[in-house]
Amino acid sequence: MAKIAILGHGVVGSGVCEVVASNQESIIRRAGQPIEIKRILDLREFETLSYADKFTKNFDDILNDDEISVVVEVMGGVSPAYEYAKALIKKGKSVVTSNKELVAAKGAKLLKLAKENNTNFYFEASVGGGIPIIRPMHMCLAANEIDEIAGILNGTTNFILTKMIKEQMNFDTALKLAQDLGYAERNPSADVDGHDACRKICILASLAFGRHVHPENVLTEGITNITLEDVDYANNWGGVIKLIGRAKRIEGSDKIECMVTPAFVSNHSQLANIDDVFNGVLIRGNATGDVVFYGKGAGKLPTASAVIADVIDVAKSNTTSKSLSWEECDENIVVDYKTTSSVFYVRVAGKDEDILEEAIDRIFNTVTHLHPKDKPMNETGFVTELINENEMENLLNKLSDENIDILTKIRIVNY
Amino acid sequence: MAKIAILGHGVVGSGVCEVVASNQESIIRRAGQPIEIKRILDLREFETLSYADKFTKNFDDILNDDEISVVVEVMGGVSPAYEYAKALIKKGKSVVTSNKELVAAKGAKLLKLAKENNTNFYFEASVGGGIPIIRPMHMCLAANEIDEIAGILNGTTNFILTKMIKEQMNFDTALKLAQDLGYAERNPSADVDGHDACRKICILASLAFGRHVHPENVLTEGITNITLEDVDYANNWGGVIKLIGRAKRIEGSDKIECMVTPAFVSNHSQLANIDDVFNGVLIRGNATGDVVFYGKGAGKLPTASAVIADVIDVAKSNTTSKSLSWEECDENIVVDYKTTSSVFYVRVAGKDEDILEEAIDRIFNTVTHLHPKDKPMNETGFVTELINENEMENLLNKLSDENIDILTKIRIVNY
Repeated sequence: MAKIAILGHGVVGSGVCEVVASNQESIIRRAGQPIEIKRILDLREFETLSYADKFTKNFDDILNDDEISVVVEVMGGVSPAYEYAKALIKKGKSVVTSNKELVAAKGAKLLKLAKENNTNFYFEASVGGGIPIIRPMHMCLAANEIDEIAGILNGTTNFILTKMIKEQMNFDTALKLAQDLGYAERNPSADVDGHDACRKICILASLAFGRHVHPENVLTEGITNITLEDVDYANNWGGVIKLIGRAKRIEGSDKIECMVTPAFVSNHSQLANIDDVFNGVLIRGNATGDVVFYGKGAGKLPTASAVIADVIDVAKSNTTSKSLSWEECDENIVVDYKTTSSVFYVRVAGKDEDILEEAIDRIFNTVTHLHPKDKPMNETGFVTELINENEMENLLNKLSDENIDILTKIRIVNY
Repeated sequence: MAKIAILGHGVVGSGVCEVVASNQESIIRRAGQPIEIKRILDLREFETLSYADKFTKNFDDILNDDEISVVVEVMGGVSPAYEYAKALIKKGKSVVTSNKELVAAKGAKLLKLAKENNTNFYFEASVGGGIPIIRPMHMCLAANEIDEIAGILNGTTNFILTKMIKEQMNFDTALKLAQDLGYAERNPSADVDGHDACRKICILASLAFGRHVHPENVLTEGITNITLEDVDYANNWGGVIKLIGRAKRIEGSDKIECMVTPAFVSNHSQLANIDDVFNGVLIRGNATGDVVFYGKGAGKLPTASAVIADVIDVAKSNTTSKSLSWEECDENIVVDYKTTSSVFYVRVAGKDEDILEEAIDRIFNTVTHLHPKDKPMNETGFVTELINENEMENLLNKLSDENIDILTKIRIVNY
């Protein structure tokens, strides 16, 4: 019998209680023993629940209970989650979390501490909710050098973009709908500004490339400026707009490229059809080629299921996983995005289409012009060749100098 | 240093040598130790290879070498692979295989034997080539009851169907192309008749539902009768034809439904866009919802990479995995497909469309008629409601009694 505690009885925490109760049979089959929730830390009252007796408001009740071997941290936020996790690991308990903010900020530190104390720090649910991605990446792709990772990592923004693409709903209406459906918070910034996706790509990149990738070093652009016009241009180009987090090993260097931005994704891409609140992660390995994992990226039961899979794993082993880990790294291993190159889509406005296209052709040499139906006469869109970010800025400045308005600039990816 | 041996230096075996050589650094990082190939069993001569000194034609050189702790079986076929695997496991060696025929026929027996001898029998590469699927299904979906599995499990047939769908190539030409490209064997029966896909769904179903599923109990239909006309009808319906292997828990019973057949898949399905030689597997869990794994289902390096991931896993642990297992079961746990129900697409020919549609409406009550462009006047296609297989046969016999030719009958799935 493995006895566990849960920190936080919110959406995921209550989901863990539910899945433990309803899937005990398959848990025993996999873990070789039953799992019992002994204590739940939450400051709120839950007197009407059948398991109300398990609640405590005092963290020490869990910290000092030697029967509890695994603690599930699903409070969210870095503090006090970090302090709690540290204290628990030092007591020899394993910690399982779904808290991407914690892992993205303190993952290397907690992994190191777990190793020192011969316990485990697992976080499958922190990326991709119910999609198994951390463990397959770590274990099954072991005989691969991972060259590149790209993913649709945030369900809320993907829901909004899907509504814009499939139903011509504008951003504000789609966001409102997402809020009404409970997919987006009242303050939607963490989602729509790309911060949530950024934390997740940092976790994946840290694991793939072996050193901690700090979110603050990663260019992060959200989707708040995407318009239905851009959706039309993307369609005319042959693709859709997705919020993509991506990381890439730089050949012959120990640095990586890493960014979160909206991007044009070709209709032929496996990422193009990942719609609504679904997530998908593509891993490009030198031996496997492209492997894609797809599923519900969030939600109570999928996330709880991933948490419990970690608990089962911890319950089964009594040594630290040596390889599910990466090094702490104060150095910034992400290159300045301005030194990298992309293919760009740009939408501009000016006097009329002919004047715009003449200026574009003169300044950019080779571009592909896009001509969606029903576009206004005074604007146009085009796609560049592969071009350095700095150089791109210079060329856009030249367009501005001719009184041309730069309306949107979106990178184009080739996954 | 883990010393391994390889049985068979064909496509996968030589790929294992290649990946071990080229990815030694990441292997050490993950396994905590280097992996050395000590012996390779093959009856052919490979004198020009740099590692020619490792070859032997005598199985006993491997069986009796106490330094060799893990043996990779990539010979294919049930015999002598099964006898070799048994002997090796009894000697306390772990066996890793990519041989789906072996696992589908003898998986339960070898897993039991491995448990008795405190070794491991792993087979990640037997399904989905380089796509991690066995281990994610086993570990990460631990806190789930798996209700249903469906997959595009054979790259050759998927390549042929993709050519038929996207390039209106007929079956024979597409098969010829697949053979010329090395995707299909000279005798393509194992692929095009569905046997390969059948072995794979049996392995996945055994793992998901806990008891051995024998291929001979699974309805297996291939793609040789699929025509370009059927492709047009599928398109008119709003989908594509794929060869789908599927298994489903029957609520309130310890039996399952399991079959391999061509199927109409809606364009909205994540399986619809899995094209060419790619494979994809959908797992429907009670907590995770739908999770899809997608990637190259075959090929030298992807498959070798999956084999080595297993080797690394075995090298890291020195106890038997208790849960990657299923029970031997002489009983047939697959229900007779005739007791199950499906939605069907049917194409028929007769005198003219009006007469055909009148007979169909009279005999079937409710159907949806399909009207693709350019179809001959003397044929038509329709989609039934959910209908029992036996009842379906009766109704089709009634159509035949009215001198209507049944040209094709394809099931429609809802993944």
